[in-house]
Amino acid sequence: MTCDFLSLALPGVQKLSPYVPGKPVDELAREFGLRVQDIVKLASNENPLGPSPRVLEAIRAALPELTRYPDGNGFALKQALSHEFGLVPEQLTLGNGSNDILELVTRAFVAPEHEVVFSEHAFAVYPIVTQAVGARAVVVPARDWGHDLSAMAAAITPATRLVFIANPNNPTGTWIGRAELEQFLAGVPERVIVVLDEAYTEYVEDADFPRGFDYLAQYPNLLVSRTFSKAYGLAALRVGYAASHPAIADALNRVRQPFNVNSLALTAACAALADEDYLQRSRELNSAGMAQLEQGFARLGLQWIPSRGNFIAVDLGREAAPVYQGLLREGVIVRPVANYGMPQHLRVTIGLEQENHRFLDALQQVLARV
Amino acid sequence: MTCDFLSLALPGVQKLSPYVPGKPVDELAREFGLRVQDIVKLASNENPLGPSPRVLEAIRAALPELTRYPDGNGFALKQALSHEFGLVPEQLTLGNGSNDILELVTRAFVAPEHEVVFSEHAFAVYPIVTQAVGARAVVVPARDWGHDLSAMAAAITPATRLVFIANPNNPTGTWIGRAELEQFLAGVPERVIVVLDEAYTEYVEDADFPRGFDYLAQYPNLLVSRTFSKAYGLAALRVGYAASHPAIADALNRVRQPFNVNSLALTAACAALADEDYLQRSRELNSAGMAQLEQGFARLGLQWIPSRGNFIAVDLGREAAPVYQGLLREGVIVRPVANYGMPQHLRVTIGLEQENHRFLDALQQVLARV
Repeated sequence: MTCDFLSLALPGVQKLSPYVPGKPVDELAREFGLRVQDIVKLASNENPLGPSPRVLEAIRAALPELTRYPDGNGFALKQALSHEFGLVPEQLTLGNGSNDILELVTRAFVAPEHEVVFSEHAFAVYPIVTQAVGARAVVVPARDWGHDLSAMAAAITPATRLVFIANPNNPTGTWIGRAELEQFLAGVPERVIVVLDEAYTEYVEDADFPRGFDYLAQYPNLLVSRTFSKAYGLAALRVGYAASHPAIADALNRVRQPFNVNSLALTAACAALADEDYLQRSRELNSAGMAQLEQGFARLGLQWIPSRGNFIAVDLGREAAPVYQGLLREGVIVRPVANYGMPQHLRVTIGLEQENHRFLDALQQVLARV
Repeated sequence: MTCDFLSLALPGVQKLSPYVPGKPVDELAREFGLRVQDIVKLASNENPLGPSPRVLEAIRAALPELTRYPDGNGFALKQALSHEFGLVPEQLTLGNGSNDILELVTRAFVAPEHEVVFSEHAFAVYPIVTQAVGARAVVVPARDWGHDLSAMAAAITPATRLVFIANPNNPTGTWIGRAELEQFLAGVPERVIVVLDEAYTEYVEDADFPRGFDYLAQYPNLLVSRTFSKAYGLAALRVGYAASHPAIADALNRVRQPFNVNSLALTAACAALADEDYLQRSRELNSAGMAQLEQGFARLGLQWIPSRGNFIAVDLGREAAPVYQGLLREGVIVRPVANYGMPQHLRVTIGLEQENHRFLDALQQVLARV
């Protein structure tokens, strides 16, 4: 043997391709010799508002306790979430971002002999966590870029242990209405856990839009995953959570690392949850920016996928990679989504008005050139 | 089926007993009606110095970027670690605390048919991560409370995939000298990965004490795990790291979550690594506090296990649980270690001089009473 340790790794691990994040600003600055302050990053569905002052205040107040371990049970945050959403702490699992939640539920319940069902063009972490445990991914073709829930229901077999549903979905921005979700949930056998990933739910204001929490009592096999990384503006700190039947939460809490969410993250999440004004401003900025981008795309003669997230997938009608590269040279980072089976689209996060403007200008120039 | 979801969980997960952390100060205050400021916590091997001013400054400077995702590759911290320890970034894996590292190496390489070897009285996370993947734990009896490396070598079978060694070990404080470690490493087959957990290495000043980094070139199957939670004073933030052969690091980096270490943690770790003065003061305070506790135990006629960590296990010569409870009522939190097979010991973290004094006083009173 000559140090070929990868061959010792589990079969699922050997075949893992790591998640590809949005290009960091620092990295682009290093590679292209640009100044950090000249770069616009609309690549990672981050909140362009900047941090909430109430969150900053809470973090500063917690700094003297930096040498102490976090509260591994997240007592205060679970209390606050329970109060806010009418849940009990026993239903909650806290995660190091909702990525942690998606991984925990898979590691707790899915073995190599199981199947995991999710949609084409759905969030990249679903295939990764499935692959990591060596299970079989059943990818159901999308309908109009969104989840085809009847086809997903039909794809459930006796080997199915988990179904991932993203509402809204990233990177397409597509969403599922109440009636459709209810019909799906009613048809899933109780031995199949449905993970409803609501990372972007706070941005959606449609009256018809379903919230998973409303269905927990009726469907004990439902797990709702949410995050503080988007509308709450805490991507740097990694806080997500799941609400589910207490028996599912029990299994997840056994698998999670004892201090998976750190102290400043717990503190910040409590403060963010209480800052209704920040959340409202996030929504308003997002609606205005979405309209701005749609108008810009229309002016450029481009199609897009209608979105309820804080991002929008624009169809360039040609290979998107060269356009992505051209935008990088202009100091604008967006997200290529060829790895999502969308080689002609770019996913653009809604930014501040001037960031959206800068992106649209750069896009126009690059499209004329490449 | 009546919501018995735990029976759907993987067999290893069903049998998991979660890690029991030190009792949080807030929890004791709630339960016993004490004031937080009156409680002394010497239960979690936390650094009593409080945060480094350089770390606080770095965190404050990073706060404006709170809405941005962390650098998933930890570029700056890997550069700093490489420079500090003469490594290359490809050898490094960053973890959400070194707990994350211990879990990642197990999940990457250990399947249910494998065996994992570790010592009696060793760190509680080794059996937990082994159990979580459904593998067989081979627990080797300790010698004088410490690792019996020859017995551990003899316990390796064709099914062994991983050996955990803690140096110094928690909760006993025992340590392994250079010659003994070298002899062990030389005898382990290359297909067995040796995880050398050096969470407390920064406290050890003995000339004969081995540092795992010195053996990486010779033993490609060695992984050295370290943490910023102890001597560097960052327990709240969860930063650990592993140095290993790049092929092992590659496997771990495939399994880890893309943003497993958060932004403030990365920033703080860089600042902590550069603060040699803080590290030195941590060591000095620890030596002085260790001597203070040893003298106190001698005065009380108690035995203890000589320790190279920032904690010491004292032998009460009787059931420790009632003494632990009595100390709680006095507002002093230490760590019961019955779950480590040490029902007559308490593990006490080295605190500030007045905290150690307060603990010794309370201990004397409680011993006279219960």
